[in-house]
Amino acid sequence: MKRSQYFLPTLKENPKEAEIVSHRYMLRAGMIKQTSAGIYAWLPMGLKVLKKIEAIVREEQNKAGAQEVLMPTIQPADLWKESGRYDAYGKEMLRIMDRGDREMLFGPTNEEMITDIFRAHVKSYKDLPKNLYHIQWKFRDEVRPRFGVMRGREFLMKDAYSFDLSPEDARISYQKMFLSYLRTFRRLGVKAIPMKADTGPIGGDLSHEFIILADTGESEVYTDKKWNDVDVTAQGLSYDDTAALETYFTEMTNIYAATDEIHDAESAPPSNELDVARGIEVGHIFYFGTKYSKAMGASVQNKDGSIVDVEMGSYGIGVSRLVGAIIEASHDDNGIIWPVEIAPFDAGLINLRSGDAACDKACEDLYQQLQDAGFDVLLDDRDARAGDKFADMDLIGLPYQIIIGPKGLEKGSAEVKNRATGETKDVALDQIVSILGNK
Amino acid sequence: MKRSQYFLPTLKENPKEAEIVSHRYMLRAGMIKQTSAGIYAWLPMGLKVLKKIEAIVREEQNKAGAQEVLMPTIQPADLWKESGRYDAYGKEMLRIMDRGDREMLFGPTNEEMITDIFRAHVKSYKDLPKNLYHIQWKFRDEVRPRFGVMRGREFLMKDAYSFDLSPEDARISYQKMFLSYLRTFRRLGVKAIPMKADTGPIGGDLSHEFIILADTGESEVYTDKKWNDVDVTAQGLSYDDTAALETYFTEMTNIYAATDEIHDAESAPPSNELDVARGIEVGHIFYFGTKYSKAMGASVQNKDGSIVDVEMGSYGIGVSRLVGAIIEASHDDNGIIWPVEIAPFDAGLINLRSGDAACDKACEDLYQQLQDAGFDVLLDDRDARAGDKFADMDLIGLPYQIIIGPKGLEKGSAEVKNRATGETKDVALDQIVSILGNK
Repeated sequence: MKRSQYFLPTLKENPKEAEIVSHRYMLRAGMIKQTSAGIYAWLPMGLKVLKKIEAIVREEQNKAGAQEVLMPTIQPADLWKESGRYDAYGKEMLRIMDRGDREMLFGPTNEEMITDIFRAHVKSYKDLPKNLYHIQWKFRDEVRPRFGVMRGREFLMKDAYSFDLSPEDARISYQKMFLSYLRTFRRLGVKAIPMKADTGPIGGDLSHEFIILADTGESEVYTDKKWNDVDVTAQGLSYDDTAALETYFTEMTNIYAATDEIHDAESAPPSNELDVARGIEVGHIFYFGTKYSKAMGASVQNKDGSIVDVEMGSYGIGVSRLVGAIIEASHDDNGIIWPVEIAPFDAGLINLRSGDAACDKACEDLYQQLQDAGFDVLLDDRDARAGDKFADMDLIGLPYQIIIGPKGLEKGSAEVKNRATGETKDVALDQIVSILGNK
Repeated sequence: MKRSQYFLPTLKENPKEAEIVSHRYMLRAGMIKQTSAGIYAWLPMGLKVLKKIEAIVREEQNKAGAQEVLMPTIQPADLWKESGRYDAYGKEMLRIMDRGDREMLFGPTNEEMITDIFRAHVKSYKDLPKNLYHIQWKFRDEVRPRFGVMRGREFLMKDAYSFDLSPEDARISYQKMFLSYLRTFRRLGVKAIPMKADTGPIGGDLSHEFIILADTGESEVYTDKKWNDVDVTAQGLSYDDTAALETYFTEMTNIYAATDEIHDAESAPPSNELDVARGIEVGHIFYFGTKYSKAMGASVQNKDGSIVDVEMGSYGIGVSRLVGAIIEASHDDNGIIWPVEIAPFDAGLINLRSGDAACDKACEDLYQQLQDAGFDVLLDDRDARAGDKFADMDLIGLPYQIIIGPKGLEKGSAEVKNRATGETKDVALDQIVSILGNK
């Protein structure tokens, strides 16, 4: 993509309304535009990142055996009356009357609707287990939306729902998602640690929050230093190997990790084995048994003919929130530093002297070569000052910058900068494609 | 995917509420479930088709130079008051009050919001032309939703908006979308014909509906027989070749095509050169000049320093509607016949005798081979009657069916059925991958 044609409205000044760094950088990097309090339009570069995150979340859900559906944003209030949550939910639920004076709402979550879909179609133990997920926009009418996409009102969430015949089976479904989440976050280039969360009246050990470590995080977290080394993704472990899955789950959940809400110095490791940091919640998984299936009549016939309420769990990932959370975890004073897998472009190509025939030609040639090699490149071909181009390129945080100017061209080279390390080196023009690695 | 694990709740009986064939088949094939009047959840197989259509629409928009953004579903009423449409829009607009008593709405379309985004960021003629599109769920509170996803209340639409400096430039933007639409529909495996539509007070020739021919279509259409032969996709024509684009556009728009609303026997070809058929609108493109830019102050500075209201057009494709429309255009008495490009699976593999060791093994082997060769296959491994498996496979309309049973296996072969032609033949097991073509 050529910058001269790309809709990438970067800002030089820090927007006053942005209190945290991810919000500031997303606005300055032309990724989003606020359209109402807590509601954002995603501009082309922001949407590219969002879609890359979404794609990785989807792939990992599919690998774990979850099946994708798509439920609508607008739900009938009747379903929520069945579960008893319609009155309980409070003002965060956006309530709507349609033209026929039917009570509707913009879904803040989907337990009721997925249970309704399940009960309409699944009648036999033979059809279990099932795990159905969707990636859809939700709405929570926050009283004070803030922090950009980190606490917006309209937000994109992946929510999965598992259905099992027994608590034992539900535990397996839970463990699959547990592993899947750690693999997902690792692919996104961030370190997320599962922390035991409140299970309410259900009890047990099947509720975890997944928290990304970031200095600017919303809560304090206490984690065993073992988290720095352990292979959370359990490479080679198959989702079908339930015995190994249990072992893995036990191993992981035995390593201490707690938010300040439930941190307990007594059971925590000694301070020399403990990291204290800040974190941002990006996922939450929860086993809730028959809470909705009982209330809404979602049951199946078992082998012996008996009727069984299905055991359910839910599994959320804040997809749009992740865009902000990853920036909180990966940036410097000059801008964003994208993990490679979700960077909006693989590299930025800066023409130091647009209009100079040799520079223009070298840039065009390299731009074409890189694309032919499978790289997605942003070429800054604008008639603008070099300083502005450098600042913009640092701000938008692409993994590599390739700088082409008259001096380097005399030697047949360009400068290649690694955004994360800041390291720069002169590279012969015909070596640049190989320097960037394989695509 | 194995049918025994797949969430594909097919129905044997015709649902009473479904008046038209696409609605009937989508419900029976387990593609959708109604959640409220005119609102549907997309089940796994329905969502797969929807996503394939969406992907083709996106690719063709990108090829034509449009850039993808994503605007939120919930919009502030203020924007619509600026354009004057808030009061004019009527009861089809789903109006919402948020917890702060601010007037909001679920977007039925996005002219106002995109104009707001444009005016906030684009100030110079240098940034033109621009064409921004998004693929987002819209809501229109139809008084009588019907026909399934063909006239639902919550529906997925691709809408693009072009911004140009002059009416001449806007004409080029319009022509690019015109060509892009014909290429899009052709890739979707359907024949769509552009028909001149009402331009209202703007006048001119820059408003077209794109109509798919289907016996069950909502309106009668009159088309020159030339449409049967002409290459509407203009292979080889570049979007950058504006002169050739004008020639192409003139050529296409000179071939007669009209809905019954504007059909005029006087100007139509003689009846022996005219086809009379029925059609379904799936796209609409429209040049509307400065209607919104003037009302909302979306202007840029021109070369000479003067301030110019930008010239705009909008370009819609009904993405979720297309799922229904394509079924209307492509089905028989037994079910859907998917065009290859958007079929939810490339082939269905029927195990005629699940539980029989030889059949099971042959099916598993072939299933693996086909997947290794890049095919997406649905294996019906259920313990069900052969008749039910045949009926279901015809219903869901995959391009090929591969039937494995004891008799064929004795000869080392399977039966391969082409769903569209009904043709069947015995094929040696080791030839099946090559019969299905290249992936």
